Amino acid sequence: MPLVVVGGVAAGLSAAARARRLDPDLEIIVLEKGPVISYGACSLPYFVEGRIRQASELIVHTPEYFRKERRIDVRTGTRVVSIAHPRREVALESGGRVRYDRLVIATGARCDTSRFGGTAQPHVFTLHTIEDAERMRRFLEDKRPKRAVVVGAGYIGVEAADALRRHGLKVTVLERSPNALLRGEPWITAAVRKQLEDHGVELRCGVTVKDIEADRVAEVECDMAVLSAGFRPNVEFAAAAGVELGRSGAIRTSERMETNWNGVYAAGDCAEVTHLVTGRPAYIPLGTTANKTGRVAGANAAGARERFPGIVGTSIVGIFGTAFATTGLSAEQARREGFSPVAARIEALSRPRHFQGRKTTVELVADRGTRRLLGGAVVGEDGAAGRINVIAAALQSRLRVDDFEQLDLAYSPPFATVWDPLLIAAQQLLKEL
Amino acid sequence: MPLVVVGGVAAGLSAAARARRLDPDLEIIVLEKGPVISYGACSLPYFVEGRIRQASELIVHTPEYFRKERRIDVRTGTRVVSIAHPRREVALESGGRVRYDRLVIATGARCDTSRFGGTAQPHVFTLHTIEDAERMRRFLEDKRPKRAVVVGAGYIGVEAADALRRHGLKVTVLERSPNALLRGEPWITAAVRKQLEDHGVELRCGVTVKDIEADRVAEVECDMAVLSAGFRPNVEFAAAAGVELGRSGAIRTSERMETNWNGVYAAGDCAEVTHLVTGRPAYIPLGTTANKTGRVAGANAAGARERFPGIVGTSIVGIFGTAFATTGLSAEQARREGFSPVAARIEALSRPRHFQGRKTTVELVADRGTRRLLGGAVVGEDGAAGRINVIAAALQSRLRVDDFEQLDLAYSPPFATVWDPLLIAAQQLLKEL
Repeated sequence: MPLVVVGGVAAGLSAAARARRLDPDLEIIVLEKGPVISYGACSLPYFVEGRIRQASELIVHTPEYFRKERRIDVRTGTRVVSIAHPRREVALESGGRVRYDRLVIATGARCDTSRFGGTAQPHVFTLHTIEDAERMRRFLEDKRPKRAVVVGAGYIGVEAADALRRHGLKVTVLERSPNALLRGEPWITAAVRKQLEDHGVELRCGVTVKDIEADRVAEVECDMAVLSAGFRPNVEFAAAAGVELGRSGAIRTSERMETNWNGVYAAGDCAEVTHLVTGRPAYIPLGTTANKTGRVAGANAAGARERFPGIVGTSIVGIFGTAFATTGLSAEQARREGFSPVAARIEALSRPRHFQGRKTTVELVADRGTRRLLGGAVVGEDGAAGRINVIAAALQSRLRVDDFEQLDLAYSPPFATVWDPLLIAAQQLLKEL
Repeated sequence: MPLVVVGGVAAGLSAAARARRLDPDLEIIVLEKGPVISYGACSLPYFVEGRIRQASELIVHTPEYFRKERRIDVRTGTRVVSIAHPRREVALESGGRVRYDRLVIATGARCDTSRFGGTAQPHVFTLHTIEDAERMRRFLEDKRPKRAVVVGAGYIGVEAADALRRHGLKVTVLERSPNALLRGEPWITAAVRKQLEDHGVELRCGVTVKDIEADRVAEVECDMAVLSAGFRPNVEFAAAAGVELGRSGAIRTSERMETNWNGVYAAGDCAEVTHLVTGRPAYIPLGTTANKTGRVAGANAAGARERFPGIVGTSIVGIFGTAFATTGLSAEQARREGFSPVAARIEALSRPRHFQGRKTTVELVADRGTRRLLGGAVVGEDGAAGRINVIAAALQSRLRVDDFEQLDLAYSPPFATVWDPLLIAAQQLLKEL
């Protein structure tokens, strides 16, 4: 009996491809509810912007590729509606059934817009699938809207705002919580606001949106609305069948990405993973994690014994050329997790002035008792990705600030200052510990 | 009695400044043999290039600054010729003596050209001090040389070749060993050669230079010669007085940067430090290490108890816009140190093509037995510094490849690919372990 994978985007196809590599003889079936598979969902805002010109450029591989090159049976337009695990069988919306020996649930997440009224109007969008993005681009070309409201100041929200602004629209971002970028961090919110305002986009926090009206959202006039709030794992049919969910509402998984059911795995945006800083399950749906957990789920479903230790929650988002990167816990998150956090934040040049150095902000957070690093943030135009990754590696290694301060980082004038901003931040944090 | 620091560049001034911060009342004297202090030696090639226009821009602080702002007595043109430790006294070339309670030896290194003949000619240069760089720039402006030979393909050598080529000279680099960049790594040498040749600079390895002739070096015609070989620690007067040297010929130090003499510290390019991958003393003189060891030496000389755990040997050099970055051990170095190394090398894009991704080469080296990461290299135009720093952090944390492969690195299309080249390299290495 085959390995069945439900979901054909990042996690699902990583699982299928990995299983094939480990077992050349395994029968592998991928069931995807949508019309296309294997697309770069994180690139959708750049397709809206126009930097990526063709929707076809978003697609990594076609079903034909998987069929011919990998002997994986990919069925698009095939929605799974229930699992009968005792019979090892999934039921399809079409009425058919597919039997499995092992199952990988990679159903992803969605933008749940049910709390908003008026979402069926043609000027209301989400930005979650290729069809969403294509519809938005057609609307921009055909209707030439002048004003947009983006609901939600998470990653997709600010990326959509950036893309729409580059089309010349007046853009307002409305966020229900007091802060942008899901970090609950006032200084990051202030930096995001400044960057948005410097480029003509308004950010309003603490605004609850109820209805999307024909010409306005929460009193802000607009010709189009983008909903990027209510990100939620697609777990309904799995949960109904008895697959256990975690506190976050996503599927609980072991280190092997196995659910409470033997031989049934979950991966990607529908699954919880372990947060390596807190040691507790977390739901931080991101493309990298989807690919990694898919790989591990696929390997184990093919009979290997691999583990996914967890994440530290590293993310980066570009807003008009400036990177906002975070990893681990903010001071506030650390406090809620029971740590005694101390934070230090510095500004320094990313490299010497003669080499186009740019102002970079680095924040580090550590635990007062253990001196262990708990998190960090880097904001700037230059080198933020590399620097947040160094902090991420340190978190994964459970480094203390004392050791972090001694990191042997590369220096040469074209690339860095002799005291890297990361080390300056660590020195500052040591003073405050 | 005062704290006396011998040497007023990176390590010496870091030591003096740190000591002052920790002890506001300590008398601190810095003795510098040259006419200027506190300059960015690593920036000299960029002054020759012309990117840094004024020599004054190379100088971070003047003796007046240290006198007034830090109450540190900096004496330039003051060469120490011997130490009489029983009397706690250094003797000056001028005949004077200076007594100390604690001593920091930060005498740096030099380019030892004594093995070459003809070095006194006006067209022969080293590139170690501001005076060297100023003389070279005057020569370029006044004599308009057409052809240069650079002796030595280490960091300064290739940076000098880059700078001279940008002045329009035909440049040939001659290296005695079979490889460039001190790494003993044929693929890096090949990459350096290609990059140099693509920009009109020739690299010849395995060429031993004896004499610098008036119009040629080792049969290569030239109007000027730059000697960047024979880097050697300045340890003569310290060694003569009984300060112990390590096998490398540099001063042996403890984790507190203390020499075999109580209260006498060494830091910077004259000192050995611990290599954290091998656990053995190493001599890898670099600006970052000079600043860090100076800070620790100064702190301890002022009565604190700080430690410098060591280095992993991270370095980066730019050649016509491409970074060549290395850290830890190459496979060959690892073999010599008794490891059983396995290496994997991959090529991947630094970020997606739509965001000006550039080809990046990543090599990782691990030990077969322990699976511990031992070293790595990153070559490319984009993001090499950030990536080598992640490897450096992993080495410092003694990560195994298995853990490195699971690093939670930042992803978003403007900044990275969903599988970072570092992770692709780790996956490849895991296949070969």
